Amino acid sequence: QALRSDADQRLYDGVLRGELRALAKTITLIESQRPDHRARAEQLIQVLLPHAGHAVRLGISGVPGVGKSTFIEALGLHLIEAGHRVAVLAVDPSSSVSGGSILGDKTRMERLSQDPRAFIRPSPAGQSLGGVAERTREAILVVEAAGYDVVIVETVGVGQSETAVANMTDVFALLQLPNAGDELQGIKKGIMELADVIAVNKADVDAKAAARAKSQLEVALHLMRPTYPDWRVPVLLTSARTGEGVAEFWDTVMRLWQMLADDGRLAAKRQRQAQAWLWEAIDAELKRWFRAHPNVRAALPDVEGSVAAGRSAPIWAARQLLAAAGIDRMRQHKE
Amino acid sequence: QALRSDADQRLYDGVLRGELRALAKTITLIESQRPDHRARAEQLIQVLLPHAGHAVRLGISGVPGVGKSTFIEALGLHLIEAGHRVAVLAVDPSSSVSGGSILGDKTRMERLSQDPRAFIRPSPAGQSLGGVAERTREAILVVEAAGYDVVIVETVGVGQSETAVANMTDVFALLQLPNAGDELQGIKKGIMELADVIAVNKADVDAKAAARAKSQLEVALHLMRPTYPDWRVPVLLTSARTGEGVAEFWDTVMRLWQMLADDGRLAAKRQRQAQAWLWEAIDAELKRWFRAHPNVRAALPDVEGSVAAGRSAPIWAARQLLAAAGIDRMRQHKE
Repeated sequence: QALRSDADQRLYDGVLRGELRALAKTITLIESQRPDHRARAEQLIQVLLPHAGHAVRLGISGVPGVGKSTFIEALGLHLIEAGHRVAVLAVDPSSSVSGGSILGDKTRMERLSQDPRAFIRPSPAGQSLGGVAERTREAILVVEAAGYDVVIVETVGVGQSETAVANMTDVFALLQLPNAGDELQGIKKGIMELADVIAVNKADVDAKAAARAKSQLEVALHLMRPTYPDWRVPVLLTSARTGEGVAEFWDTVMRLWQMLADDGRLAAKRQRQAQAWLWEAIDAELKRWFRAHPNVRAALPDVEGSVAAGRSAPIWAARQLLAAAGIDRMRQHKE
Repeated sequence: QALRSDADQRLYDGVLRGELRALAKTITLIESQRPDHRARAEQLIQVLLPHAGHAVRLGISGVPGVGKSTFIEALGLHLIEAGHRVAVLAVDPSSSVSGGSILGDKTRMERLSQDPRAFIRPSPAGQSLGGVAERTREAILVVEAAGYDVVIVETVGVGQSETAVANMTDVFALLQLPNAGDELQGIKKGIMELADVIAVNKADVDAKAAARAKSQLEVALHLMRPTYPDWRVPVLLTSARTGEGVAEFWDTVMRLWQMLADDGRLAAKRQRQAQAWLWEAIDAELKRWFRAHPNVRAALPDVEGSVAAGRSAPIWAARQLLAAAGIDRMRQHKE
């Protein structure tokens, strides 16, 4: 379909030509919360979609201090050497408070960010985790349409952002520190179950500790149900500083990616992800719409006060607010 | 307000008099998915609400095989001896498939179920976890109105039902098996973080293993952020078979409960739970309403097919379905 304006047509053309300015502007449009910007962004995504989908989508997580940025820079430079174009995006729930902590400081990936074959974009700020994840998911399609053939989505190893990133990428990798207390962190949060590949990073600092961490992780992995029956999650030793294991890490990621691509599991996984995204987007918009409804906003203080005071059962109060928005239990079933 | 019918008035009177028949019928009404039943159930809950809230609400979880039923029976009999009236409810997500596995077989708590001072109700069947949790939350209010002063909500130690139960109870207890592999299960799923009290059950079978499990759990607890700064989560040794530790378990639960009740934290917690329940009920109903909307149902096959085939971006498809239900981004912001 025709785009809404010449400006959007220029963005579209620019993205397809891989122009950094157009790419950055399009993603800024995506991150905007203004309704008119959202409408333009969604149409741009829709028209760019046929040009997207050709990249390897890799999620990378790990607790603060594990050396994610340094590792991703080393990996990115390795990939560029090999002829790839690399986009690095981020899902950082703390950005809603701080305005973006990971990737926010581009100097953390100084060499990679100065290379024209790389595109680095910090986490969108001022949004909920759901919003951050939705915007990043959209940005993946845009950078793919711009010709990047490897998309790395970075996230922090705390909270629920890992699940969001695992649900928008093809392969999910977890970086671990070479000490005992820490891999318990990964286990505790249920993150290890998401990992397709694990790398014990900073392995050069204390080789003995790294080897111990590796075997502890392998024991823990044995207790878990494997995601793929034909893929044993490998635990690699890496060091972004010395470059140890970085090439092997990428080869391992590609071995799994190719295996999934060859027999159709990758396509099926992306289809499931798209389906889940559809319903998440709908439910998120339903919530926004309801909370912004003028009748709901007018009734809310009384209703919430009544629940807080114990005068209204929450389910009763819910029904009052739903009725205020015109959502009636009985009618829906008669229609 | 006036109830809808004489039948509902009889249920209301019967529940307040603590009649088992009226209580069971009211909960059956709550569990029904028929819209007219829901309307009656919600009104009954609302009118019973002023008579509810006086019980100690205790959640109990643990993996299959940990001996939950036997433990709850021993605890229930202990409480009845002490003059309490005990209601046992269940949140079992597997009941949506199997028609109810925990508490489904009343013979598993034979002595307790035959005691007129106890009321045992299996998990509602044929609903999603969200539905099961919502219905159980409603049932808590009803059994409280019927005069039960201890409400135990049992759940299985797998999946997300623990969070749901922790969010509807005052104190959450976790039963653990006395062996090493198993408490890792609890850690892995993030359940241990919910626990206010932990009991290593079946401690009589292997006292040494139980003591080891206790100290391992205490180490793991030290790594976690405490829920209350003035409550160190105790790890008790219990045996439902010998009765060891059951009285101490209850005393421990009550020590925390009283501490929270005394300084207003219990009231604040219940207020937060009610607030969260309000919004969960609204969001669940919005989802149901949207999916049942005739225009959405009519458009869905094409839209989903288009997403699956990669012709529509999920966010674009979401917008089409939302428009079909009359939910328009622009209008909501102008109103």
